[in-house]
Amino acid sequence: MQSFLELAQQFETKFNVRHFPKQPQTLYDAAQYILAIGGKRVRPVCVLMGNELFADINQDAWQVAAAIELFHNFSLIHDDIMDKAPLRRGMQTVHAKYGDATALLAGDVMFAQAYDYLTRIDLSYVQKIIKLFNQTSKEVCEGQQIDMDFEQMQNVGMEQYIQMITLKTSVLLAASLQLGAILGGAGEGNQQHIYSFGKNLGIAFQIQDDYLDAFGDPEKFGKQIGGDILSNKKTFLLLHALEVATANQKKEIDTLISTNPTDKVEKMLTIYKDCKVDEWAKELKEKYYKTALKNLADIAVLAIRKKPLYELAIYLMERES
Amino acid sequence: MQSFLELAQQFETKFNVRHFPKQPQTLYDAAQYILAIGGKRVRPVCVLMGNELFADINQDAWQVAAAIELFHNFSLIHDDIMDKAPLRRGMQTVHAKYGDATALLAGDVMFAQAYDYLTRIDLSYVQKIIKLFNQTSKEVCEGQQIDMDFEQMQNVGMEQYIQMITLKTSVLLAASLQLGAILGGAGEGNQQHIYSFGKNLGIAFQIQDDYLDAFGDPEKFGKQIGGDILSNKKTFLLLHALEVATANQKKEIDTLISTNPTDKVEKMLTIYKDCKVDEWAKELKEKYYKTALKNLADIAVLAIRKKPLYELAIYLMERES
Repeated sequence: MQSFLELAQQFETKFNVRHFPKQPQTLYDAAQYILAIGGKRVRPVCVLMGNELFADINQDAWQVAAAIELFHNFSLIHDDIMDKAPLRRGMQTVHAKYGDATALLAGDVMFAQAYDYLTRIDLSYVQKIIKLFNQTSKEVCEGQQIDMDFEQMQNVGMEQYIQMITLKTSVLLAASLQLGAILGGAGEGNQQHIYSFGKNLGIAFQIQDDYLDAFGDPEKFGKQIGGDILSNKKTFLLLHALEVATANQKKEIDTLISTNPTDKVEKMLTIYKDCKVDEWAKELKEKYYKTALKNLADIAVLAIRKKPLYELAIYLMERES
Repeated sequence: MQSFLELAQQFETKFNVRHFPKQPQTLYDAAQYILAIGGKRVRPVCVLMGNELFADINQDAWQVAAAIELFHNFSLIHDDIMDKAPLRRGMQTVHAKYGDATALLAGDVMFAQAYDYLTRIDLSYVQKIIKLFNQTSKEVCEGQQIDMDFEQMQNVGMEQYIQMITLKTSVLLAASLQLGAILGGAGEGNQQHIYSFGKNLGIAFQIQDDYLDAFGDPEKFGKQIGGDILSNKKTFLLLHALEVATANQKKEIDTLISTNPTDKVEKMLTIYKDCKVDEWAKELKEKYYKTALKNLADIAVLAIRKKPLYELAIYLMERES
């Protein structure tokens, strides 16, 4: 059994090659650029960990892991175009550096290349693997669309929001683990448990993300505190505040959102604290985290095999940036 | 053996269903919208014809045909975003109607859905089919990128241009036929011949397209004559004119391109005719057309089986709009 970091290192070594031809250079340099920026490689390593929970790592798991990382980067490129984001992991986004059109195409070829890796695996599970991958990729697109739809809506309910977050971010984590489990020979029941583990962990992770953006330690948090508040992003925190705020507080929130005063972050955080949004978010995170741990416990393999996944969950939940 | 039109009708009936779930509506309505606009369905029918050249139509051919049509529409949506095109087949483009972000995503889910259909086919050729599909989809993206690169270049050689056209439009026609041939049980040699037939026919078709845009009969041609000239598009005609024009003619072409006078189309056509660009284009088209027919002749099946493909070639080459 190997830890997340051990597997991440091995994945990085194997993945750190050129995935595309040289020509046309404008296209493929753009595609390589985002891969070189890096990232924690959480999703591809989840493929490997999902596999190793049940059996030694199947050589095909490296192909599936690479496909997942390519898919993830494809969706980042396209999301950044849609969101007109200038920066990603502190670097210029692909469209900011290479233009919208090339970024769009670079995402497309990356998606095609992901399938290229998927079709290299053993015939016995190629259909099952690609089916789950397809379903997940459509769900990720749906999540992004629902997120954009929310921008136009006055009222977004908490359930709708959790559904959106699940599609936009959690299902990919969940599917990565299940894809690994399939390659490790897991039965249907165990596959469902590991999928649920990833899904609930993903939701808890997103709540943590929203929490840190508002209440994180500025010394440890890598980004500006209150970025979500400044950009009027609908987050778990804002939606809950709107649910529990008094009429006066609601009015103040609306004014802060529409007038963008210089002390917007400070004032919004005061309302959040008055509404106990911070405590609520911690509890909600705990709820999903505990469900995830229950899902992990339900998987029918020796507890010792679960150690790396358990440690990964702790690592993702206790991060401060 | 069925004709192109017979197969096109059957394809239309089977394809004319909703390919996506209802929700999120913004996303999937956009995806359905472009499919409903229609088109000649040349590529998916080529899958069916490529199959029927060698054997009765395999049920899987309908899945592959649907995948090809979804892929084609995915690439149209993304190309239209990149080209900022307001109209497609006389209707609003997807991004003009639904916004760039939704159009981008609608293309993405359509691409994923194409793979969904591909994975439903018999295991015995799923890898071979997806491999060719992947290679082709990457080539189509490359062609689009090279086309955009050309916009920034002063000098584009004829060979480079033919390479771009091959990638951007011909390989999909070629691959559609070969995919069908694989499903029909064709051997490697016959697969290569039918691929070459599609590739050369595609190039001839594009030359015809450029020719009609400049020299078509305004009564029969569905679009405005000279659209390519007005938009300074690098076409076969312009590239050849620049190759053979005198220094004075070259200067006049450059002036027309940079100053956009009201009589630009008329004046450019005069230069084209003085340079015999029309005759040259007809000859070039004939050259590729004849090579395509030679490729068709080389396929080792009874001549009578080739009749529908031969008629398709004539139909595509003799069109006036």
